Amino acid sequence: MCRWLAYSGTPQILETILYKPAHSLIDQSLHSRLGVETTNGDGFGIGWYAQDSDVSTPAVVRDTGPAWNNRNLREIASHVRSPLFFAHIRASTGTAVQQTNSHPFRHDRWMWMHNGAIAGFPLLRRELCLAVAPSLFAEIEGSTDSEVMFFLALTFGLEDDPPGAVARMAGLVERTGRAHGIAAPLQMTIAATDGSDVWAFRYASEGVARSLFYSSRVDSLRALHPDVSFLRDLSEETRLVVSEPLGSLPGAWNEVPEHSCGVVRENGADELRPFAPA
Amino acid sequence: MCRWLAYSGTPQILETILYKPAHSLIDQSLHSRLGVETTNGDGFGIGWYAQDSDVSTPAVVRDTGPAWNNRNLREIASHVRSPLFFAHIRASTGTAVQQTNSHPFRHDRWMWMHNGAIAGFPLLRRELCLAVAPSLFAEIEGSTDSEVMFFLALTFGLEDDPPGAVARMAGLVERTGRAHGIAAPLQMTIAATDGSDVWAFRYASEGVARSLFYSSRVDSLRALHPDVSFLRDLSEETRLVVSEPLGSLPGAWNEVPEHSCGVVRENGADELRPFAPA
Amino acid sequence: MCRWLAYSGTPQILETILYKPAHSLIDQSLHSRLGVETTNGDGFGIGWYAQDSDVSTPAVVRDTGPAWNNRNLREIASHVRSPLFFAHIRASTGTAVQQTNSHPFRHDRWMWMHNGAIAGFPLLRRELCLAVAPSLFAEIEGSTDSEVMFFLALTFGLEDDPPGAVARMAGLVERTGRAHGIAAPLQMTIAATDGSDVWAFRYASEGVARSLFYSSRVDSLRALHPDVSFLRDLSEETRLVVSEPLGSLPGAWNEVPEHSCGVVRENGADELRPFAPA
Amino acid sequence: MCRWLAYSGTPQILETILYKPAHSLIDQSLHSRLGVETTNGDGFGIGWYAQDSDVSTPAVVRDTGPAWNNRNLREIASHVRSPLFFAHIRASTGTAVQQTNSHPFRHDRWMWMHNGAIAGFPLLRRELCLAVAPSLFAEIEGSTDSEVMFFLALTFGLEDDPPGAVARMAGLVERTGRAHGIAAPLQMTIAATDGSDVWAFRYASEGVARSLFYSSRVDSLRALHPDVSFLRDLSEETRLVVSEPLGSLPGAWNEVPEHSCGVVRENGADELRPFAPA
Repeated sequence: MCRWLAYSGTPQILETILYKPAHSLIDQSLHSRLGVETTNGDGFGIGWYAQDSDVSTPAVVRDTGPAWNNRNLREIASHVRSPLFFAHIRASTGTAVQQTNSHPFRHDRWMWMHNGAIAGFPLLRRELCLAVAPSLFAEIEGSTDSEVMFFLALTFGLEDDPPGAVARMAGLVERTGRAHGIAAPLQMTIAATDGSDVWAFRYASEGVARSLFYSSRVDSLRALHPDVSFLRDLSEETRLVVSEPLGSLPGAWNEVPEHSCGVVRENGADELRPFAPA
Repeated sequence: MCRWLAYSGTPQILETILYKPAHSLIDQSLHSRLGVETTNGDGFGIGWYAQDSDVSTPAVVRDTGPAWNNRNLREIASHVRSPLFFAHIRASTGTAVQQTNSHPFRHDRWMWMHNGAIAGFPLLRRELCLAVAPSLFAEIEGSTDSEVMFFLALTFGLEDDPPGAVARMAGLVERTGRAHGIAAPLQMTIAATDGSDVWAFRYASEGVARSLFYSSRVDSLRALHPDVSFLRDLSEETRLVVSEPLGSLPGAWNEVPEHSCGVVRENGADELRPFAPA
Repeated sequence: MCRWLAYSGTPQILETILYKPAHSLIDQSLHSRLGVETTNGDGFGIGWYAQDSDVSTPAVVRDTGPAWNNRNLREIASHVRSPLFFAHIRASTGTAVQQTNSHPFRHDRWMWMHNGAIAGFPLLRRELCLAVAPSLFAEIEGSTDSEVMFFLALTFGLEDDPPGAVARMAGLVERTGRAHGIAAPLQMTIAATDGSDVWAFRYASEGVARSLFYSSRVDSLRALHPDVSFLRDLSEETRLVVSEPLGSLPGAWNEVPEHSCGVVRENGADELRPFAPA
Repeated sequence: MCRWLAYSGTPQILETILYKPAHSLIDQSLHSRLGVETTNGDGFGIGWYAQDSDVSTPAVVRDTGPAWNNRNLREIASHVRSPLFFAHIRASTGTAVQQTNSHPFRHDRWMWMHNGAIAGFPLLRRELCLAVAPSLFAEIEGSTDSEVMFFLALTFGLEDDPPGAVARMAGLVERTGRAHGIAAPLQMTIAATDGSDVWAFRYASEGVARSLFYSSRVDSLRALHPDVSFLRDLSEETRLVVSEPLGSLPGAWNEVPEHSCGVVRENGADELRPFAPA
C-alpha cells in the first residue's frame, strides 16, 4: 500500500503542495488515514517537469528511507517550482526497499506511479514479464508489480492511447491471475503523464478499490471560498489527484468513482469516464 | 521518543528475542503502543558481546532507515548468538537521522542507550558539552542529547560507579536546565552495560517517566507456566529490560518503578533501588 | 568489474582475512591492482556460515556504499568468526547500485558471487531470464547479469552437479550471445558454495579471463615459512580463493589457470580441472 | 582530502559544468589527478541558488555515497538551472561518512565548503568548538573540522567581512594548534558565498597548499577561441573556481596563488589579494 499525489496547473514550489497542507502527503507517510497501512515509510519519490526548460523529460528523485525525515526531499521541495509533478510514498508489501522499486517510474517523457497490488504477483511475475515488449524488457530495474504494470502499459500503447493501454494491461493481469486460480487479481490506482496531460485510474477486480480523490474546479472553489487567497493565484486549469484529501477546505475534494479513468488536460478540458479491463 | 531492549542471560540467536515474540521490538518500530509516537522509523542499532570470544568490546551495528524493513538487521539477528545484547529503535525529535545518532553508543567495552529527551537541548547543548572531559570530547560524533548524556556519565565515573555517575549526569542536566528557565529538563530511561552487568534507569524531572519494564525471575515464570518449553532452556539469571512488554505470557513483566535504578547481574544477584539526580 | 574472496578452513574472525593483510580486499576496494577498474566502490557484501550453529543457511549482509568506509562491515568483521565465508566488492558497469545487485547471492544454503560480465547483457537479458526455471523466477530481485547467471546455474542443477550446471549456464550464455552477434559473450570468475565445499571457475569466451588465485597448501607454506606464527594456527584444509593476492608471503599464491574449475573440499581433497561451456 | 567547484555567472543547467567537461568534478570523484587521494567517494553535496525565486536561501542536497554512481545527483543536475552553485566531493580522513559531514554547509543564505584539514583536529576540537558563538553552537550537526571552521568564521563576522572573518578563524586555528605543539596546523582551500559574491581562499601553514584554480576572463577566452560556441553564451561575469581544472581549453585556467583570497563579484569586479591569518 502506498499513497500518491499528482499536481497539474499553476507552477508551484513543490513544498506548497507536499508539505504545507494539513494532512499533507509527507504527513501521510507517518499517519495515513485511508490507507491499508498507516505508515508509508519504505521509500519515496518525486518527479517534476521543469518550467520553461529545453529538457522535456521529467527529473525523478527517489530514495529508500521514509519521506518524513528526508532532508534532501525537503530541500528540493522548497526550491524547485513546477507546473506538473508527481509524488509517491511507499509501503512495501514484501519486495525489496530499493531505489528502483520507488515510484514514479520513467520512460522517456512519461511517468507512472501506482498504489495497489497484483495478488499472487510472485506466481504471475514471469508470465507478465514475458508479455513486456522485448525492446523494453532491459529497462526493468526493480522487482515490483507496479513497474511491470508500467512496462506492460507501454507495450500496449500507453504513449498513443493511455486509457486503452491501461485497459489492456489490466485485462492481461485479470486473465493471467484467473488462469492461476486467483479470484481477484488486481487492485490499482494509477497516475500516468506525458508532461502535458495526467491520466488517473481507479479499479479493483472486486470489492472497494483503493481510495482516490480529485480536486474541485478552481472557479467553483473560489466561489465557495472568496476569501481564501491561495485560490486566487491558481489558474482555472489547476487540478490535483490524490490518494487522500489534503488540507481542510470544504468542497475541495471529490471521490474518483470506482472503475473509472480521469484525464487532467493542460488546456482544462478534463474528463471522467468508466474504466474496464480489455 | 524511542524504544529499546536489553537482554542478558542464556545465549540466544538475537532473532528469538528481537523478531519472534508477539509485539516484538521490530513490531514496535511500526506499532509502538506505549511510546509517545507509534512509529520509530528514524534509525536503529544493535550491540552484542560475542560468546566465547577474545574480543571484549561489543559489536555495534547501526543504520539510518527503519528497523522493520532492514534486511541486514534480519540477517545478523538470525545468525548471531549472544549472551548480552542491546537493541534500539529511534524516533527522532528533530536531530539528524544519521548513523552516529543511532543507539547504542559505545566506549571501550561499554554500551549505552536512551529513550527520552533533555528539554531545550539546543539551548543547553554547549554548556553540557563543555562539561564532558576534554579527553572524551573528540569521541562525540553525533548531535543527540543521548550521546552527550553518555559522555557526561563517562566523565562522572560510569566505569567505576554506574548509578553514581548517572545520578551526577542527571543532576547536571537538572541544574543546567533550570538555570536556563526550563521547568522539567529531563525525561530518561537508560540502559548501560560493561558486558557483564546491565544497569537500567527510569527517571523524569516531573510527571510520569517513559515506560520501562523488566522480566520476572525465570524460576517464578517456570512455576507459573510449566508447559512453556522456551522457559525450560533459560538460565535462572536470564533477564530482559524493555520499553514495552513483549509476548503474551501472563506474569512475565513488571514495571520498573519511577525514579529507580536496577542492575541485572551476570551472577543473578539483581537489585532494584531508588534513583535521584545528584 | 569486481573483486572477491572465498575462505574455507580454520574458523577465523573475518577481519583477520578481510582487513588485516597487506593489500586486503578492503584495500582493493580503493586500490585494486589487477582489476579492470582500480576502484570497487559500488556496493559490497559478505556471507558467512555460523560456526557450530543449528542454522544451515549463511548470513548475507550487503550494502550499497563502498566497503572501505563502512563501519557496520568493520563491526561485523571484527566480531564474527566463521569457517567458511565469501566477501565481494562491486564496481558497477552501469546497472543500479542497490542491495539486491550486491553479491553474494543466496538460495537456501547456497551462495554465489561473480566477477566479470556478459557482453551485451541488456540485449540478452530477456532470453536468459526466460531460461530460468519458473519456480525460481520470482526470486530474482536485482538487475545484474551475475544474479541471472546464478539462477540459470540453479536451474541447470547447481545443487547436484556444480561444475556441470555452471558449464551448462556458460554454454547457454555463449550460444545466446553468439545468436545475437556478440563475438565474445562471457567473462567470468565465479565462486559457489553449499556451506561445505567451494567451487571456483575462471573462464573467458576469448582473451585473458579476469584474474583469479588460490592459496598454496598450508603444509607447504609452513615448510617455506617455519617462523610465521599465523600459519601454525591454520588447519591443513584451509584455503583461500581470491581475485588478487593478499599479503606478502612468498609462495602463498598460485594463479587459477584459464578455463578451469577448482573445488575446495571441507575434507581437504581439493581438485583443479579444465572447464568448458556445455 | 576533497575536491570542489564554485560557479557564478550565466545560469546553467548544473550538468553542463558538473558532468560534461572532460575531467569533470564527477570524474574527479573516481580519478582525481591533483588531490592527495585519487578517490573522493565518501559523500558529496551540491548547493544552488534558484533563478528568479522568492527563496533567498540556497538548496543544499548532500548524501553519503560516491557522487559517481548517484542517480539523484544526476537527475537534479540535469534539470536544475542556477546562476550560482557549489559542488563538493569528499574523501574522509577518518570522520564519519554522514550527511551532516558532507559539504557545502549552510547558515541562512550563506554556503561554505572546504578542502584540507586541521592537523590534530581531535586534539583541538573542543577548544575550537568553545570559540564558536553560543548562539551558533547548536547548529553544529556533524563532526568535521570544516563545519567548525565555518561556524568560527560566522562567529568572527563572515557575513560582514568575509576575508577578515576567515583570517581570524585561520589565526585561531594557527594559535590553538601551535599551543598544542602542532607545527603546521592548517591546510585549506575554502569557498564561501552569500548568494551574490563568492570568496575563495588558499592557504597552508607551511609547504604547498592544496591545489586551486580560477577560470580566465570570458572575453579573453573568446578572443583566444573564437570558434568555441559554448563561450559565446557566457556572460562576461561568468567565473569558476575549482580544485582541479576541468575541460581541455588552453588558457582557461590560472592557479590561485598560495596565501591568497579572491572574490568573484556578481558585477564582474573580481579581485585577488594576499591572505594571512589574523
